[in-house]
Amino acid sequence: MKFVRQAWYVAGWSSEFTRIITRITIMNENIALYRTKTGKIVALQDRCPHKSLPLSMGRLIDDNIQCGYHGMTFNPEGYCVRIPGQGSIPRSAVVKNFPVQEKNDIVWIWMGPPEKADEKEIFHLEEFDNSGWKSHQGDALYFQSNYLNVAENLVDPAHVSFVHPTTLGNPESENVTVKTDISGEVLVAWRWIRDAPPVGFFKSFGNFTGNVDRWHYYYLYMPSIAVIDFGSANTSWNLKEEERHKGVRVFTVHFLTPVSETECIDRWMHLRNIQIDDEEVSRKMDEMFRLAFDEDKAILEAIQQEESRSSNQQTISLAIDKAPNVYRLRIKRMIENEVNSNT
Amino acid sequence: MKFVRQAWYVAGWSSEFTRIITRITIMNENIALYRTKTGKIVALQDRCPHKSLPLSMGRLIDDNIQCGYHGMTFNPEGYCVRIPGQGSIPRSAVVKNFPVQEKNDIVWIWMGPPEKADEKEIFHLEEFDNSGWKSHQGDALYFQSNYLNVAENLVDPAHVSFVHPTTLGNPESENVTVKTDISGEVLVAWRWIRDAPPVGFFKSFGNFTGNVDRWHYYYLYMPSIAVIDFGSANTSWNLKEEERHKGVRVFTVHFLTPVSETECIDRWMHLRNIQIDDEEVSRKMDEMFRLAFDEDKAILEAIQQEESRSSNQQTISLAIDKAPNVYRLRIKRMIENEVNSNT
Amino acid sequence: MKFVRQAWYVAGWSSEFTRIITRITIMNENIALYRTKTGKIVALQDRCPHKSLPLSMGRLIDDNIQCGYHGMTFNPEGYCVRIPGQGSIPRSAVVKNFPVQEKNDIVWIWMGPPEKADEKEIFHLEEFDNSGWKSHQGDALYFQSNYLNVAENLVDPAHVSFVHPTTLGNPESENVTVKTDISGEVLVAWRWIRDAPPVGFFKSFGNFTGNVDRWHYYYLYMPSIAVIDFGSANTSWNLKEEERHKGVRVFTVHFLTPVSETECIDRWMHLRNIQIDDEEVSRKMDEMFRLAFDEDKAILEAIQQEESRSSNQQTISLAIDKAPNVYRLRIKRMIENEVNSNT
Repeated sequence: MKFVRQAWYVAGWSSEFTRIITRITIMNENIALYRTKTGKIVALQDRCPHKSLPLSMGRLIDDNIQCGYHGMTFNPEGYCVRIPGQGSIPRSAVVKNFPVQEKNDIVWIWMGPPEKADEKEIFHLEEFDNSGWKSHQGDALYFQSNYLNVAENLVDPAHVSFVHPTTLGNPESENVTVKTDISGEVLVAWRWIRDAPPVGFFKSFGNFTGNVDRWHYYYLYMPSIAVIDFGSANTSWNLKEEERHKGVRVFTVHFLTPVSETECIDRWMHLRNIQIDDEEVSRKMDEMFRLAFDEDKAILEAIQQEESRSSNQQTISLAIDKAPNVYRLRIKRMIENEVNSNT
Repeated sequence: MKFVRQAWYVAGWSSEFTRIITRITIMNENIALYRTKTGKIVALQDRCPHKSLPLSMGRLIDDNIQCGYHGMTFNPEGYCVRIPGQGSIPRSAVVKNFPVQEKNDIVWIWMGPPEKADEKEIFHLEEFDNSGWKSHQGDALYFQSNYLNVAENLVDPAHVSFVHPTTLGNPESENVTVKTDISGEVLVAWRWIRDAPPVGFFKSFGNFTGNVDRWHYYYLYMPSIAVIDFGSANTSWNLKEEERHKGVRVFTVHFLTPVSETECIDRWMHLRNIQIDDEEVSRKMDEMFRLAFDEDKAILEAIQQEESRSSNQQTISLAIDKAPNVYRLRIKRMIENEVNSNT
Repeated sequence: MKFVRQAWYVAGWSSEFTRIITRITIMNENIALYRTKTGKIVALQDRCPHKSLPLSMGRLIDDNIQCGYHGMTFNPEGYCVRIPGQGSIPRSAVVKNFPVQEKNDIVWIWMGPPEKADEKEIFHLEEFDNSGWKSHQGDALYFQSNYLNVAENLVDPAHVSFVHPTTLGNPESENVTVKTDISGEVLVAWRWIRDAPPVGFFKSFGNFTGNVDRWHYYYLYMPSIAVIDFGSANTSWNLKEEERHKGVRVFTVHFLTPVSETECIDRWMHLRNIQIDDEEVSRKMDEMFRLAFDEDKAILEAIQQEESRSSNQQTISLAIDKAPNVYRLRIKRMIENEVNSNT
């Protein structure tokens, strides 16, 4: 597997980065991140070019990072500014600098050629800035799974009835056909389950007593960000698809960051249009999502083990795989385009 | 190493399989086993053909197994009978079914082409059905060792004096030559030690006070089942070889199942012609055999580590290796014959 | 990486070897060591030529070693002297014998062709036999690092200010240029830091109150033994380089033994010219060196992880790398010479 490099990935929540040097790994590259004294984020290759010690084992001298072995010191751009005991600094004394941006309390990192980084391309959701919505950061969930299988799962409404029977799904949805729209840049897959008992999640947060109309919309942004729009409304309202804002509506957003061929991190958050001033609701939603996403983790890590054991086993495609299959094809083409543009 | 596939292997004791799906691994293949409502054993490839999730992570719907990811459901023959949200079922939606048989409270599985499975070929021991004998199932002992080295050990009377000096052997047998009979389908290696102090095991179970005549007969059935006939009798009786039934006689039976190139399971049981109604004797024999077989495990796992570290080290053959060497040669030929019959 | 084989390596301190068989690993070879009844050290390949069981799992019969599987028995020269149950002993029944010598309470082992072993080439330090010095054996420190990186560190005075800021170094030495002498068989790198506060170590052991002149001399003996000469003297004495014996002077000696491509053992000891009759000082020095060498261990194991992850990353050389670079070149030539002399 190769990775899509020309994209903004989530390096972490803003709160994760301070004056303490933090090491992260993306696409097998170790990266040291820290804030300058004025709070700007710096991301440098986490390997001293002298003896390969991770720079994150060193320390900050003002805005510079000093290697813990022989004191070579690099500035936020990655240029060496000091070699103890040596007057001249060779040109090769430099570490790779990664473009980073902070937006919506999230730290974004560009893994492609720096000159192609365009901060206008960073993912954005209208509801982040909408006062009718409460947005809340969840966890960094580590998956021992390649990121493609996890992304697939995020444009797959059909798994919900079986993987999350007590929280996000229930048997009423088992046989409902999945609809998809693969015409735009964002892949969409969705289902409406009309006139059925509410699922566990909306029993807890919607106070529904009778039957509801329920929807799941999965939006997958290339290469690996998903927005899932869940919601319910009283069946008696006979809600139209475009009227979902009238119902009880919750978004989860999943920022997938590939760590290696067989590992990724899913940083997830949620947004809601109800009880937006109640912090306790945020906490309770975190709890329920943790439960549900651990169910995905168990499934996806078992699949990774099976794939690692024997990579060339044949699998079959079902009708529900339409969006996932298009997703994989697009990833393949993006990687091919990057390779071609470099030659 | 390759494996002999056209053979009945032990999947487990009958008591191990219930309405809970159990995963086992034989020759690197993961297999899901369960009982139907009427108690019949089912063995299916433990991988859903859709996304490769182990079916053992799903659940039973009556006699069928439902995948835990998207609900694909397979019947006991391995055919898909339901794809939730999809009308037609593709022909490729099938998992491999393994022939299984239950006999003597043991579950047998056939790893070769199903059409070649013949239940008449399942291992049988006359004493299983003999009312003068008590048979008792022991443990499933896991070896981090390839199965050939373990099998060799089971047609090798010479190791007993050195590996089991306090239980099954003692110094009196060290220099006694091993006899072998390699003319039949079953390989045999044996020794008589006449007029010597009893070993620990027969001190405990035979109540011998003076010297005894003692025998060890090792019968190795291809590809990997061994029966070991141990016994002792008062030296004064001057027992002939064919009169062993008159002495205190114990069989251990070892069913070796290869798990991978470097792992196997030895399911062992024992039979005896004394104190056959005393359950406490069964328990005490279990204890003593556990002690002895752990001594074999330590030896064989150390050898596996050495072989894994460096596979092309030269070794030498001794006189005691006659039966083990014939065994290895026969395994090699069986595998070659299977390969040739498939082309 | 290949290893220099034609050299005397440290197998262990004399006190480590008794009538109990001890297994060590050098350059991926497992070796069984024990003492004969008269105290002579024996070193044999730790693998029985019959079934590859480590001989160290067997037991001593007088001066011979008996395999724990079938009782094959080898004498101190490695020749088989007994095969239980078999009259004649084949010529191939032999295990490799390694030349060993005991000197200065250290057991030395020769890893090259036995006929080239010359005990006069064993490392020696004049101060071992000098009554004005106390010598004391420390620990066997295991590094998950290739031995070359560790050896480099032992001819590198420049790391001390950064890796050991509270014990062996301090900021005053950061910018002092390293001097080297690469003209002889022993590589030397050194620094004098004049008129500066004492480092932690010499505050503890020298009772210095004012500024001192401090030196670090690193002597690297091929292929992997280092002597480090540290010391301090009152600045007012204006000590010359050749008058170091007048100051408070401590040697650490590091005997590096390669275990595998990515592991080695650093057996270290220390010698001092002060308080030579006070055992408590030896104990306290052990404690401080343990602290300091664990700092090296953290650095070198992190570097090994980085190198194992990706072996072809480019690195740059600094002025301080003069002696380390010559060291690596000499190792390379020694290995080439050995290979050529064998063809």
